[in-house]
Amino acid sequence: MCNGLLEAGAELVSVYDPDTVKVNGFLSKFPEAQPAASMDEVINDPSINLIACASIPRDRGEIGTKAMHAGKDFFADKPPFVSIEQLEKCREACRSTGRKFFVYFSERLHVEAAVYAEKLIKEGAIGRVIHMDGFGPHRHSPEIRPAWFYDKSAYGGIICDIGSHQIEQFLYYTGAKSAEVEFSRTANYHTKEYPDFEDFGEVVLTGDNGATCHIRLDWFTPDALPVWGDGRTFILGTEGYIELRKYVNLCEDSGGSHVFLCNKSECTHIQADEKTGFPFFGSLIRDCLDRTETSMPQEHVFNTMELALKAQNAARQDKFFKE
Amino acid sequence: MCNGLLEAGAELVSVYDPDTVKVNGFLSKFPEAQPAASMDEVINDPSINLIACASIPRDRGEIGTKAMHAGKDFFADKPPFVSIEQLEKCREACRSTGRKFFVYFSERLHVEAAVYAEKLIKEGAIGRVIHMDGFGPHRHSPEIRPAWFYDKSAYGGIICDIGSHQIEQFLYYTGAKSAEVEFSRTANYHTKEYPDFEDFGEVVLTGDNGATCHIRLDWFTPDALPVWGDGRTFILGTEGYIELRKYVNLCEDSGGSHVFLCNKSECTHIQADEKTGFPFFGSLIRDCLDRTETSMPQEHVFNTMELALKAQNAARQDKFFKE
Repeated sequence: MCNGLLEAGAELVSVYDPDTVKVNGFLSKFPEAQPAASMDEVINDPSINLIACASIPRDRGEIGTKAMHAGKDFFADKPPFVSIEQLEKCREACRSTGRKFFVYFSERLHVEAAVYAEKLIKEGAIGRVIHMDGFGPHRHSPEIRPAWFYDKSAYGGIICDIGSHQIEQFLYYTGAKSAEVEFSRTANYHTKEYPDFEDFGEVVLTGDNGATCHIRLDWFTPDALPVWGDGRTFILGTEGYIELRKYVNLCEDSGGSHVFLCNKSECTHIQADEKTGFPFFGSLIRDCLDRTETSMPQEHVFNTMELALKAQNAARQDKFFKE
Repeated sequence: MCNGLLEAGAELVSVYDPDTVKVNGFLSKFPEAQPAASMDEVINDPSINLIACASIPRDRGEIGTKAMHAGKDFFADKPPFVSIEQLEKCREACRSTGRKFFVYFSERLHVEAAVYAEKLIKEGAIGRVIHMDGFGPHRHSPEIRPAWFYDKSAYGGIICDIGSHQIEQFLYYTGAKSAEVEFSRTANYHTKEYPDFEDFGEVVLTGDNGATCHIRLDWFTPDALPVWGDGRTFILGTEGYIELRKYVNLCEDSGGSHVFLCNKSECTHIQADEKTGFPFFGSLIRDCLDRTETSMPQEHVFNTMELALKAQNAARQDKFFKE
């Protein structure tokens, strides 16, 4: 988040985390930041316009509400909420304070293939978008996970967490404002040592404009994949389709961002690295300075999370296979 | 169907179609066949053990029932039925006559990548299969379609038709015997000139062994794709995953059958052409001669079609986008 903002011209002021090891790690990358003694010191610093927050997901909404009441715009890592109640409080804080609440939906905003797809769709390369399939596989890597990673009340469940990325992409690429949840499922298929963990999830949506969506989420990325996940997005339009291989071209490279476009006149593989950059961060900064809404409409953030939380709450919960 | 059988050692006896143009087309490829004067002549020919039938889908079940009562085994193109009633009559005919009713689920049986995947799964290359995503896109090509192509009572709907392939693969690869239909949808998004046509479909299943499935079907293959459809199968297991690019490696070749395997120890692209052949046809012939059930269990055929028809009948029906 800080990288993206700094590359777009932001100035880094201060950093706070209750864990000083983490603060020192951050400072080794960003020596210009001043370590703050408390969160309140950051929230009350009059020189700061925007706070970026990647706390435990459960705490983000409350910190954001507090920051907005202190006159700051807020940029939360995803998922920004783990409950509808947190979301509604934040929505109300946006309304009453006039401040902005951005979310770092990195799987679209910070991936060049995803930015390139947006351009193609806007140009009409695949006609009207009918359907999106999104795969969000992730490597589990239990050896590096903090305790809260396995506490559903802290991270909100696999659909709230990973699924919010996918739902955001669906609403964005199809232009739907909201959607119905037709079906949702979470499961623990193979992570017996953490019985409350959700290692699989899926959701089917129908957008308010008729576009449809299936997303699949999992923590089963195998060791031999050279990246953390073979994230894919398939966007089907009336005149063609786009496939995004967002982080790797499976078995062909060791990491890269790829767009495959097929329509009436071309079938083209576009290597998207260093093609688009990440315009979101500059737009976000301008939105803060100019009080505009060019980077991400405020209601898009809340509609995305409302859908993710509804799908999470409605999910059929499956357990291990019968042996 | 005849190609596969002849390559496996079958002898072609006779051919019948009410359309003599089609009979002549067939005879130009297979000059050893004798044209029959009627369907009954074929059904009653004592030299024939097996009848292969690619009539209009609506008629296949009845022809098969008649053929089995005349002592023949039967090999239907898919979909073999367009209603549960036809299915039940055929199931009963199998029981009462002891004859066999095979279905040409070509997207698994006659695709080398799909045969290769079966081998990998049996070897344990991806552990236990958790989930399958199947994409069944097809080129519409209205200029070559007969009138019944647009008559749902004749072809059964997009899930019954294309979806039965995908459901068959799900049951086969996961080892589920049957499944619940969690959600299904058909739509006519963009084929306004044929308002009853279904140009899109999707289904979510939960297998009786806990494995899950999403399939997506459509008639939107764009002109620039060098083959009729970019059929994909993604098989997620506890220890890795397989992606099948069944008919083309998008933007990389002009047609080929590809397996991508990623697990703990390897991330490998296997060009599957001329690797496996099509063992189904030889097994089918042996099953007919030996009265065994090695090529495809009889109940697998009926369970597949029962699921496809249930999903078709339960489908949410969507229409054009709001403009």
